Amino acid sequence: MGLPERPRIAIVGATGAVGRELLSLLEERRFPCAAIRLLASSRSAGTAIRHGGESIVVEELTERSFEGIDLALFSAGGSISRRFAPAAVAAGATVIDNSSCFRMNDDVPLVVPEINGDELASNRFAVGRGEAGIIANPNCSTIIALMAVTPLHRAVGVRRMVVSTYQAASGAGAALMAELEQQARDYAEGRPYTTDICGRQYLFNVFSHDSPVGDDGYNEEERKLLRETHRIWNDDNVRVSATCVRVPVLRAHAEAIHLTLDAPLDEAAIRGLLDEAPGVRVLDDRAANRFPEPIDAAGRDEVLVGRIRTDVSEPDGRGVALFACGDQLRKGAALNAIQIAEWLLADEPARGA
Amino acid sequence: MGLPERPRIAIVGATGAVGRELLSLLEERRFPCAAIRLLASSRSAGTAIRHGGESIVVEELTERSFEGIDLALFSAGGSISRRFAPAAVAAGATVIDNSSCFRMNDDVPLVVPEINGDELASNRFAVGRGEAGIIANPNCSTIIALMAVTPLHRAVGVRRMVVSTYQAASGAGAALMAELEQQARDYAEGRPYTTDICGRQYLFNVFSHDSPVGDDGYNEEERKLLRETHRIWNDDNVRVSATCVRVPVLRAHAEAIHLTLDAPLDEAAIRGLLDEAPGVRVLDDRAANRFPEPIDAAGRDEVLVGRIRTDVSEPDGRGVALFACGDQLRKGAALNAIQIAEWLLADEPARGA
Repeated sequence: MGLPERPRIAIVGATGAVGRELLSLLEERRFPCAAIRLLASSRSAGTAIRHGGESIVVEELTERSFEGIDLALFSAGGSISRRFAPAAVAAGATVIDNSSCFRMNDDVPLVVPEINGDELASNRFAVGRGEAGIIANPNCSTIIALMAVTPLHRAVGVRRMVVSTYQAASGAGAALMAELEQQARDYAEGRPYTTDICGRQYLFNVFSHDSPVGDDGYNEEERKLLRETHRIWNDDNVRVSATCVRVPVLRAHAEAIHLTLDAPLDEAAIRGLLDEAPGVRVLDDRAANRFPEPIDAAGRDEVLVGRIRTDVSEPDGRGVALFACGDQLRKGAALNAIQIAEWLLADEPARGA
Repeated sequence: MGLPERPRIAIVGATGAVGRELLSLLEERRFPCAAIRLLASSRSAGTAIRHGGESIVVEELTERSFEGIDLALFSAGGSISRRFAPAAVAAGATVIDNSSCFRMNDDVPLVVPEINGDELASNRFAVGRGEAGIIANPNCSTIIALMAVTPLHRAVGVRRMVVSTYQAASGAGAALMAELEQQARDYAEGRPYTTDICGRQYLFNVFSHDSPVGDDGYNEEERKLLRETHRIWNDDNVRVSATCVRVPVLRAHAEAIHLTLDAPLDEAAIRGLLDEAPGVRVLDDRAANRFPEPIDAAGRDEVLVGRIRTDVSEPDGRGVALFACGDQLRKGAALNAIQIAEWLLADEPARGA
């Protein structure tokens, strides 16, 4: 589908939390590549990063960085994507973009391989026509929620989804992760909290997701959950509401999800559907009180799902409650991007999932 | 209502997190009392606790501890309440019990003064008849949710309430608070986490509330939210579903609340109702992205409410979403108990609120 067997890869934002995860996943998953170019701002250029036994020096990102590149993985924020992704495409590269910049663009597929990987083969999109183009990686909270919920949506239809998130520091980048760890050291040493990145005490606290809040009172993270769900499911009728909250956790998100289905589905059926779903692992031991926790999801590829129960507040057995945890840097970002790349590389589309 | 002007008070569980808060609230609110007796297990007996410039020695709790006591404030767990509250009543004391032991007992009022303080005057209950009896203090998550939601329920009726909690360590007692702080020091010093109380890493993690899980998949904390809401509102038709989660926060709970109302209520009306509600403070600054946080609620009497918005996933403007924070040790436990005591003391019932 437009990628050579051993593509030459560029990572934009190579020194960030997602960039480093992309690089380690390429190695871990033995992704075939002829060369890797690491790109970042002038501030980070010159940094040497270890990869597969060698050292790669980070280069400054410019419009000319993409000559000879087949696949460009962007994770440096929306403004960098807006400015440089078109240059990468013009140079002949396929772009997988982790920012929100192109996600609502009709010409750009928004893809979670397990859910709608087949869109990559659609000739509605450049990539499906074998041309260079942009593929958007969805928002982390959306990916994790939909990994847990899509099997139920496919089975009977989801009419309404109410999500409360417990989001990790990593979604705001490596600097916030470091600041959260620093605040634990500040606490232990009796110093005032370091708040350069966060602007507040984050340790022993939670706060509403600090994305801009619109006139309807929803913040941008919550809007993403609504509109990206509609795009990924290709269904604007599903009603979605979210409360997105940052908790003092390093790299895995948790989400409490309450669903209204179009038809009843009992617990055994739900568990069966989730057990069979690729990329999902059920962890739901009531007797031992063992359910998904961020520290279990961290570093793992699967989204963990537990607390599976009929929501008693919804009549006729059409309510379902779930609790999901997924690594924000893996399935929420870098892993999903690499799975898209694997799909592009594969002869048969099953590989990416 | 059965309490002398300057009652003699016993605090059962005086060395616990709630017990200490009870004692400091008595002083802070200048609660009139002729004497204070501090009671605890034999392990804690002999401990001296400072109060109002003097030192009170903790005595061992026995069936004979309540002689001469007018008001007994219990906060030492359900089994202690079950065993000793009847002895206190037999000795002529009014009991305000913070455990879940008597909350579903038809002869015991379950009271949040701002919401149903008038039940204390009802002759359905011993306390309303001027006799010694037991009054139950509700569950912390329930109190905080209902402080935020009752004004809307009174105005138009709440049909359904879906709550996701972000619960602090304090709900499990002073030992878990200390262990969470210890884990921050363990992290800073590179030691393995101390897990004697929690049995797991709590710092940088969240976990499903560790109360027993029933056959329907709901844990005990979630069931309390359902059945105590029914009792406090005296309305079994309200449908309630909760996901209760412990987050690494010390002493204030947060709750994401999604409501379905019986009739539409616009944002301005909701804000007006909450602005007028006693014990509630609206903190909802969208431009500055300032909403309730546990560290703001800690040590405060009011329940903070923000993120006030119409829930877009509910048709006809009947959906509301809110985010509330309240101090678990204050309004969630000790303050509510003291307010009940103030109500019993007052000539006019308004005082307790």
